[in-house]
Amino acid sequence: VQYTDKYFEDYEVGETFERRDVRTITDAEVTNFAGVSGDFHPLHMSDEFAAKTPYGERVAHGDLVFVLAEGLVGETNLHSVSYGHDNLRFVEPVYLGDTLSFHREVIETADYDEQWGRVVYRYTIRNQTDEVVLVDDHITLVEKRPA
Amino acid sequence: VQYTDKYFEDYEVGETFERRDVRTITDAEVTNFAGVSGDFHPLHMSDEFAAKTPYGERVAHGDLVFVLAEGLVGETNLHSVSYGHDNLRFVEPVYLGDTLSFHREVIETADYDEQWGRVVYRYTIRNQTDEVVLVDDHITLVEKRPA
Amino acid sequence: VQYTDKYFEDYEVGETFERRDVRTITDAEVTNFAGVSGDFHPLHMSDEFAAKTPYGERVAHGDLVFVLAEGLVGETNLHSVSYGHDNLRFVEPVYLGDTLSFHREVIETADYDEQWGRVVYRYTIRNQTDEVVLVDDHITLVEKRPA
Amino acid sequence: VQYTDKYFEDYEVGETFERRDVRTITDAEVTNFAGVSGDFHPLHMSDEFAAKTPYGERVAHGDLVFVLAEGLVGETNLHSVSYGHDNLRFVEPVYLGDTLSFHREVIETADYDEQWGRVVYRYTIRNQTDEVVLVDDHITLVEKRPA
Amino acid sequence: VQYTDKYFEDYEVGETFERRDVRTITDAEVTNFAGVSGDFHPLHMSDEFAAKTPYGERVAHGDLVFVLAEGLVGETNLHSVSYGHDNLRFVEPVYLGDTLSFHREVIETADYDEQWGRVVYRYTIRNQTDEVVLVDDHITLVEKRPA
Amino acid sequence: VQYTDKYFEDYEVGETFERRDVRTITDAEVTNFAGVSGDFHPLHMSDEFAAKTPYGERVAHGDLVFVLAEGLVGETNLHSVSYGHDNLRFVEPVYLGDTLSFHREVIETADYDEQWGRVVYRYTIRNQTDEVVLVDDHITLVEKRPA
Repeated sequence: VQYTDKYFEDYEVGETFERRDVRTITDAEVTNFAGVSGDFHPLHMSDEFAAKTPYGERVAHGDLVFVLAEGLVGETNLHSVSYGHDNLRFVEPVYLGDTLSFHREVIETADYDEQWGRVVYRYTIRNQTDEVVLVDDHITLVEKRPA
Repeated sequence: VQYTDKYFEDYEVGETFERRDVRTITDAEVTNFAGVSGDFHPLHMSDEFAAKTPYGERVAHGDLVFVLAEGLVGETNLHSVSYGHDNLRFVEPVYLGDTLSFHREVIETADYDEQWGRVVYRYTIRNQTDEVVLVDDHITLVEKRPA
Repeated sequence: VQYTDKYFEDYEVGETFERRDVRTITDAEVTNFAGVSGDFHPLHMSDEFAAKTPYGERVAHGDLVFVLAEGLVGETNLHSVSYGHDNLRFVEPVYLGDTLSFHREVIETADYDEQWGRVVYRYTIRNQTDEVVLVDDHITLVEKRPA
Repeated sequence: VQYTDKYFEDYEVGETFERRDVRTITDAEVTNFAGVSGDFHPLHMSDEFAAKTPYGERVAHGDLVFVLAEGLVGETNLHSVSYGHDNLRFVEPVYLGDTLSFHREVIETADYDEQWGRVVYRYTIRNQTDEVVLVDDHITLVEKRPA
Repeated sequence: VQYTDKYFEDYEVGETFERRDVRTITDAEVTNFAGVSGDFHPLHMSDEFAAKTPYGERVAHGDLVFVLAEGLVGETNLHSVSYGHDNLRFVEPVYLGDTLSFHREVIETADYDEQWGRVVYRYTIRNQTDEVVLVDDHITLVEKRPA
Repeated sequence: VQYTDKYFEDYEVGETFERRDVRTITDAEVTNFAGVSGDFHPLHMSDEFAAKTPYGERVAHGDLVFVLAEGLVGETNLHSVSYGHDNLRFVEPVYLGDTLSFHREVIETADYDEQWGRVVYRYTIRNQTDEVVLVDDHITLVEKRPA
């Protein structure tokens, strides 16, 4: 648990952070995510079912890939709260055995109110052949530096 | 695992589905979600830390509440694929012990291409005092009925 | 979570429900079941041990296959309670990688007392080569329709 | 992992084994069992839902209590295989916080075929007020002692 | 996942890192650790059993507290490998609900061979009343800076 | 859960206990251990990352192997408490798919105080090719037999 101790004024559009090849999506992760979310769709859970779909084999839950982004490259900034997400898109399927790279960039900083500023991160997740599999814009509010 | 067997033409704006009081968010769910996502922020994991924040006690991961929506009231329609999400907003904190109700409504049906139509669901999740805690628009693509 | 809203009078012998190819039994499921049940028998947990048995490879816990039946094709009827099971038999071993199909049939409806009727389901679980691997009779009590 | 190294001839009707007060059923166990089995019935998962039922509060899955019996007092005998169960009955509800005692007794030994004998265990599980909550007859086959 | 990119020459005796109040030990963590390790001792798993011991209530596995140290304040340095541990001591019991603070200090740097140096961290874990509950010396090998 | 009911006077240096080929380390165990400990180092979690290290493939957490020792061959003696560990060494890497054998020997018995004696176990864990992968000395205190 590494913390970032930054105020709104410390963020600049264009800042990036990246972790390459940091996680292979496995059956265990898909199974555990199914158990937490309750989403046991056979496209994720059944080899035989998946073999008959256009995917040809089991596909990870898109939401699993999404939640990993926060755990793997999200900032743990105690001056920041999560406001929401836009433009979350499941661009390509993620198969079991794919290894993901996570990239985060500040794409917007804007005034929000007297106490808070708005900082938007764009997440771009790629697989081992460098295809983009998921994009997401994470909107956060960050405290302004106390006077 | 209940399946829905509907084509694009079978969806109408305004259709709703709801499950009231279907899940209490507990320490076990938060702990398991932390283990899957890798997000061990002390606001979720530490009583002492959380007591010193404006929340006053541990708060569930917003992403946990989000992923439960799909598991609890999402449709398992074999003619449908998940395209993405917009307007995901963490409106109010969810505390351990809160019990959630999940509401889903079709808010848009639109042509996408020759094979697929676009169906957008709005999820609205409320706690036991009927406060909205999370909203989300889930964009799906649904196959058109074969000729 | 789909609910069935049926009273005792709504059940008839011969009703069936089926989900084909809905779950592949994997190492993750076996490992998680071991952790929940505390049953770490090396036939389930050790490749080397299992290789020296007549099975030749790791075998899933029979109880894991049993509990999946309720989760995958069990009815969530709020007018029903679980009374017990008879004739649960582990007919053939389930190996890691096997994909299971679940079949449920009402085999008995009978008066129980003034308030409840007895509804018995027979579960038949088959693997991907259509061999029966487990059978079980699930006895439930279902409320009679209020006058 | 303690093993028993007994042949069919070594079992006698009336042998007992017991573990008193060995497990408290908690929210974590219920949540993990739901994730493994896929059974998220709100009677197990929702305080608000359960409060409106005759039970008044959340109840553990009967199948969870059943599978613990094997893990806690089941014999790990490498000469034995699990054949099936009869007379599994959910006698009383198990609430979160209940502490269980597990009792096992050999109730039948019988010839099966040339190689195997049949050994039946009766499991009786009690809560902290000594009420029986679950009974089950576990049928196993045990190898006869080689000549 | 934050990485440290340091060579042996970059470490100095006396360097410290600390996370205060970062984790509350809960029933879910104890239950999950039992499932992973297979250690279901009733002192960890049974309220009734624990009540009759000098501890008076359930106690977390000492090994759970130990493994959290690496996850919470361990360095993820890609130039470093784990060599071993000495002086791991379970100083005081950790009860469910205790919140832990983790402190790490470099207590030794020494030549190991041509390629590697030895860096020893002392971990000191305290509870919410600032009692030391666990100490441990973690011996690592760190690559020397390439010429 | 098998208990040992021994007092300090019942232990002798040289006593051994062994379980051969009792556990295969799998992706599921590594993933679950990461989730419990919070240690998601890519050497454990990423095929692509591990392929570029001298190990060539994913390696299990050393601490996972350590905690399994207690669960697999540790004594559950109600007259005993865990005092600490010394000489824990990660001798060789454990790869996914390796099957482990656990060996425990009493290497020291010594007076501690009026009430307790000290019993030290040496654990030696080997893989399927009989290489030692981990050693550890577990120091316990065991009650002296009441007069």
